[in-house]
Amino acid sequence: MAAAVVRGDGSLAGPRAVRPTPPQGGAETLWATVGAVLDDAVRAAPDDVAIAGVGAGCGGPMTWPAGAVSPLNIPGWRRFPLRARLQDRHPGLPVRLHNDAICLAVAEHWRGRGRGRGSLLGLVVSTGVGGGLVLGGRLIDGATGNAGHVGHVVVDPGGPDCACGGRGCLEAIAAGPRLARWAREQGWRPSDPEADARALADDARAGDAIAVAAYTRAGWALGVAIASAVSLLDVDAVVVGGGLSQAGPLLFEPLRAAYADHAGLDFAREVPIDPPLLGQEAGVVGAAALLLAGDAYWSAG
Amino acid sequence: MAAAVVRGDGSLAGPRAVRPTPPQGGAETLWATVGAVLDDAVRAAPDDVAIAGVGAGCGGPMTWPAGAVSPLNIPGWRRFPLRARLQDRHPGLPVRLHNDAICLAVAEHWRGRGRGRGSLLGLVVSTGVGGGLVLGGRLIDGATGNAGHVGHVVVDPGGPDCACGGRGCLEAIAAGPRLARWAREQGWRPSDPEADARALADDARAGDAIAVAAYTRAGWALGVAIASAVSLLDVDAVVVGGGLSQAGPLLFEPLRAAYADHAGLDFAREVPIDPPLLGQEAGVVGAAALLLAGDAYWSAG
Repeated sequence: MAAAVVRGDGSLAGPRAVRPTPPQGGAETLWATVGAVLDDAVRAAPDDVAIAGVGAGCGGPMTWPAGAVSPLNIPGWRRFPLRARLQDRHPGLPVRLHNDAICLAVAEHWRGRGRGRGSLLGLVVSTGVGGGLVLGGRLIDGATGNAGHVGHVVVDPGGPDCACGGRGCLEAIAAGPRLARWAREQGWRPSDPEADARALADDARAGDAIAVAAYTRAGWALGVAIASAVSLLDVDAVVVGGGLSQAGPLLFEPLRAAYADHAGLDFAREVPIDPPLLGQEAGVVGAAALLLAGDAYWSAG
Repeated sequence: MAAAVVRGDGSLAGPRAVRPTPPQGGAETLWATVGAVLDDAVRAAPDDVAIAGVGAGCGGPMTWPAGAVSPLNIPGWRRFPLRARLQDRHPGLPVRLHNDAICLAVAEHWRGRGRGRGSLLGLVVSTGVGGGLVLGGRLIDGATGNAGHVGHVVVDPGGPDCACGGRGCLEAIAAGPRLARWAREQGWRPSDPEADARALADDARAGDAIAVAAYTRAGWALGVAIASAVSLLDVDAVVVGGGLSQAGPLLFEPLRAAYADHAGLDFAREVPIDPPLLGQEAGVVGAAALLLAGDAYWSAG
């Protein structure tokens, strides 16, 4: 869990505070850690800083804008009223909460790759594939707060079943655990039986052919999905973040090749596709932008 | 070509005037027909109606918002300055022009299936597959005025080459001429060598197995593409119009089956997918809405 005091211009007023998410923590243990990391961040900021509000990002799914969260990777929170708790902790201050992938897209639009541009598609490729859309200068929330689910764009209609109930979704191919599983099915034999997509990237860099093929396949799926999304949305820029994006050219080269194969329309061809500019700060900067950028990134009450 | 005088509430003040597009007409012949159909529409409206502005829709591609049009099906217009000509013809009145598929989406959001809702995805399945997006209550134009190109969402990455330069796009499968070509390749032998997707629908209704398979394939492609788009956009409603939509259940049944197969996320499952409510009036109503709905459907100067 990470927190920081962010200034109106998007710079950090003090260092980012980080605490590990308590493994197997119950709802209140997790909440106590949120409080601790918030206190850390405020203590680390200059004394003369006045807190104007609380912005937060959390893994989905969540009810939005009510902000009851059930993050897939944090089983201790199921419909945990995170926004309401933050509001109780900070009476009188505005509190806004959104999906963490949306916070990345917002951060990159506000102060990163999309700065000064009208639109940006952001993807987070990690244990799942999430995303966020800024179009016409505003965050698109969708009818139910769920816009940006780029992980469920279909890239291979006859492809693997997806956890969503569909088939051939981007996430079913390019999410880290699916990538590692595919590599194992192809004969990848890492020394650590718990090895994940990060270890797979290490093996690919060391020349393991199956590991290279796994990243090539994930990059291909991302390139197809991004081609579909850019054709539909005519965005100025695309950012691909999350743990898997740290594989660099292993992922981005096949991604760009598949994009070039499938994005034929003139307006789509030259759209830049890059890793985030803000790096690890993107999460806290995007959460802060929910409040600090007027209502550009917040359409709810 | 069609024109009508549309009231502020979206109803027609007089009947819709229609004139055939002159085949092989040069740029000025075509423009003279525009003038004639506009005069027809004004003459058919009550005398006390005051014209507040001119809204227009035209096939793409076009420069936007400048409005120089090069409609694929009207070879006589290449970079024809349609918006500027309309402005010259109606000095002092606001003139707005957008893609005709966008006008359909706008009409259906303003006064059709999307009325009172925040968002709508509209598709026009005809000689091509176009579309338009209304999200968060506003038309999404995109970085270059090209948002809504749902015809270039990839539905079968190993599929047929597309005119855009890509591969496996929705349009490469579901556009009328591609559908008719596929049926011929499978052995469809219509009595009229010029027979098109409309004749193919007639044959399908008469029980021709190849014709039924062709519409099933087009419906499947539409269902996959709409599943991708709804997952990404979280819209309230989808409208599928254009000539092919008049095939009715031949197209909509396989479309809904493929959608159900691929749209697994809770928020996506119940999204209604229907033919337009406004029928043949959608084009003129949407063009009028560019002006009559404030700036909800117009972000440019």
